Amino acid sequence: MTAPEIDPRSSDALLAGELIDAWPFLSAEERAEGFRLLATPEAEDLFLGLEARDQATLLLALPRTERQLWIRQLAPDDAADVLQEVSDEAERLALQELIDLETRREVGALLAYAEDAAGGLMSPRYARLRPEMRVDEAISYLRRQAQTNLETIYYIYVLDAEQRLIGVVSFRELFAAPPEATVRDVMRDQIVTVPDDMDQEAVAGVIAEHDLMAVPVVDGQGRLRGIVTVDDIVDVVREEATEDIQKIGGTSALDAPYLQVGLGEMVRKRVGWLAVLFLGSLLTATVIGHYEYEIAKAVVLALFIPLIISSGGNSGSQATTLVIRALAIGELRLRDWWRVLLKEVASGLALGAILGVIGFVRVWVWPGPDPTDQTVLIAFTVAASLVGIVLWGSLVGAMLPFLLSRLGFDPASASAPFVATIVDVTGLVLYFSVAALLLTGTLL
Amino acid sequence: MTAPEIDPRSSDALLAGELIDAWPFLSAEERAEGFRLLATPEAEDLFLGLEARDQATLLLALPRTERQLWIRQLAPDDAADVLQEVSDEAERLALQELIDLETRREVGALLAYAEDAAGGLMSPRYARLRPEMRVDEAISYLRRQAQTNLETIYYIYVLDAEQRLIGVVSFRELFAAPPEATVRDVMRDQIVTVPDDMDQEAVAGVIAEHDLMAVPVVDGQGRLRGIVTVDDIVDVVREEATEDIQKIGGTSALDAPYLQVGLGEMVRKRVGWLAVLFLGSLLTATVIGHYEYEIAKAVVLALFIPLIISSGGNSGSQATTLVIRALAIGELRLRDWWRVLLKEVASGLALGAILGVIGFVRVWVWPGPDPTDQTVLIAFTVAASLVGIVLWGSLVGAMLPFLLSRLGFDPASASAPFVATIVDVTGLVLYFSVAALLLTGTLL
Repeated sequence: MTAPEIDPRSSDALLAGELIDAWPFLSAEERAEGFRLLATPEAEDLFLGLEARDQATLLLALPRTERQLWIRQLAPDDAADVLQEVSDEAERLALQELIDLETRREVGALLAYAEDAAGGLMSPRYARLRPEMRVDEAISYLRRQAQTNLETIYYIYVLDAEQRLIGVVSFRELFAAPPEATVRDVMRDQIVTVPDDMDQEAVAGVIAEHDLMAVPVVDGQGRLRGIVTVDDIVDVVREEATEDIQKIGGTSALDAPYLQVGLGEMVRKRVGWLAVLFLGSLLTATVIGHYEYEIAKAVVLALFIPLIISSGGNSGSQATTLVIRALAIGELRLRDWWRVLLKEVASGLALGAILGVIGFVRVWVWPGPDPTDQTVLIAFTVAASLVGIVLWGSLVGAMLPFLLSRLGFDPASASAPFVATIVDVTGLVLYFSVAALLLTGTLL
Repeated sequence: MTAPEIDPRSSDALLAGELIDAWPFLSAEERAEGFRLLATPEAEDLFLGLEARDQATLLLALPRTERQLWIRQLAPDDAADVLQEVSDEAERLALQELIDLETRREVGALLAYAEDAAGGLMSPRYARLRPEMRVDEAISYLRRQAQTNLETIYYIYVLDAEQRLIGVVSFRELFAAPPEATVRDVMRDQIVTVPDDMDQEAVAGVIAEHDLMAVPVVDGQGRLRGIVTVDDIVDVVREEATEDIQKIGGTSALDAPYLQVGLGEMVRKRVGWLAVLFLGSLLTATVIGHYEYEIAKAVVLALFIPLIISSGGNSGSQATTLVIRALAIGELRLRDWWRVLLKEVASGLALGAILGVIGFVRVWVWPGPDPTDQTVLIAFTVAASLVGIVLWGSLVGAMLPFLLSRLGFDPASASAPFVATIVDVTGLVLYFSVAALLLTGTLL
């Protein structure tokens, strides 16, 4: 929540600007070298504006004596994030030792939570009041608290003697209240809270739905453990969307900016799904092999194989991305699957009919190198297969995210290529079955 | 920035809970009917928590006499959003007339901006101070401002006589400063601002990058026009990610929740791309028709058509989604295209080699119904084609978003199905060319 400010007039600021610009393309050593050339205010702005991953590599690249200075600039939740980015156990403990005693205790408590849970995201530095305080006492008490490093004073939390959260008052409300009222008089006692083990995507949903600036995190006993502020949520929402998009494209989540992922890592993140899908696709050869006799008799059937299967893949890709996103942002719940099924049956039939008509016209009007008397039959085969496969693609694409989610997997794993591969294999069976049905006795 | 609070103990709250749960599945009339049954606090919480689109339909479904009460509950930026959702001109003007005079003036100014620009997103209700004020004067002046409807008092903006933004001070800093200092002494004069015509996705980038709670919006003369707060940005980030995901899947952005899109609208949003891709796919039939003679001589070639083209489509889908997302969140800039090209050449070759080896083994070890002496040649043809097509898919997928962006289109239009279709057509040419090269004189 600090605003890095860069004065375009000073040469230090110029240097800082160049450094930030070149940042993604520098090695850890080059970054540390550039960083140490900066004047303190610019270095502070740069350091505090970095992602946790970059802060960690920078700290490790600095001389030991300077690490302490910098890690102590971080709020406990940010320090915990940095420590979680250090994979080497010994390095991590050494960094943790550099933090001052009180913050280290707070960091330790945060590290006990999963990185992507509310507890791992929260800051323990919230403003707090006791219910029996008078408003004017509360304001001067807050004035002293505000001189320490609070995450926000937008909301102030009212705790009883057991640290249980009993109310909340916005600073504005407190400020506008009569000085002689008590905090209990002005606080609201119905509070939106999240449990400390809630997944960060769900926390983002709560904050977005209620338009909150911060949400309190409570443990099983109703004790306030910390707050998650909306600015942290912006990062969460971006990260989660990035992961979903990468999965929809058929890659494992990269977890780092594209240009910073090394070649080996990039291939590893991509080859998994690609190989699985390839093995699945091998079945297409088996299916076609099964119909080799039919193709030998009517080579014209081979012409429309890619057209048929890619139409199924495309409609499947549309349906799966629509459903994955709607599930992710809470527009759809698992129990809505049958509403989606009904909608996709209708859409799939309509879309299939439109493509079927275009396909029929294409085959009939412009039948290729050697038209036969059976051209109209082939056109019917293609059109009927298109209706079937677009419907089938829409259903597979729409239902697979629900199925994966029900089985405990991430629905975003129902990637466009995954759906396309399933539809490719089954779609070929459909196509050749329709062909056998319509063409036996004439072409076959 | 209000927290809708629902007391689970009261029956009114129960009713409100049920209503919210059933909301997406109710008609406008049913919604209005349920809404009017609620007690005022529950109705307020429900109304203020709705999306602008739902607020608009609800308002229009209420009796005229009640509309005024509700539209006056909205801050000017929210009222402007609601008006922008009303497509009927007469209805919109009628609603606008119901707003009180001062707010109506503010709403009018906001409506002059594009909905997705900083100016369309900002709130004109920010806290402001003059630089020559003393800190204690400023605090009591703010105390009076806080009783009106400010968007946030987290940041307070310091304006000169011409309404130009000359500084900013956080409430916490002001609160912790010595009472006799002036605002000018404690304010910071290097401020992150955004121009009023900046696109909302770019505004989200600025706020996320600098971890701000709010960003001031200035016009061409440096005058402060309003502020964009981070809670509005959470919605923007979610919306933009949703649009990108839908485009990546090959659909036009739905602009409404899945279940609320009617069948006709759903088909219209999907048939466009589907038909374009279908027309593109028709070229695959032309390409295969061109090689009909080869297929008739060696039907085995047809077996591997789907395998080859879907491998190209899958690697293209991976590359395009990675690049689209990296461009959207600013990890890549247009001028980085050649870094991406180099990386994709390397990844594409590595991935292609891995799939090529698997493909070779599959064809060689398990050659299908009637193995010939030329099996090893066919295996070579498939393997070489796989290396080529995976490389080609990766390159097309990675470069198309850059190309579209350079031409002024949304890079997210380089959808997975679009890339797959391009790669299908060109990949077939590649496959049959490799086959002609390796098999002429033996099988062909």
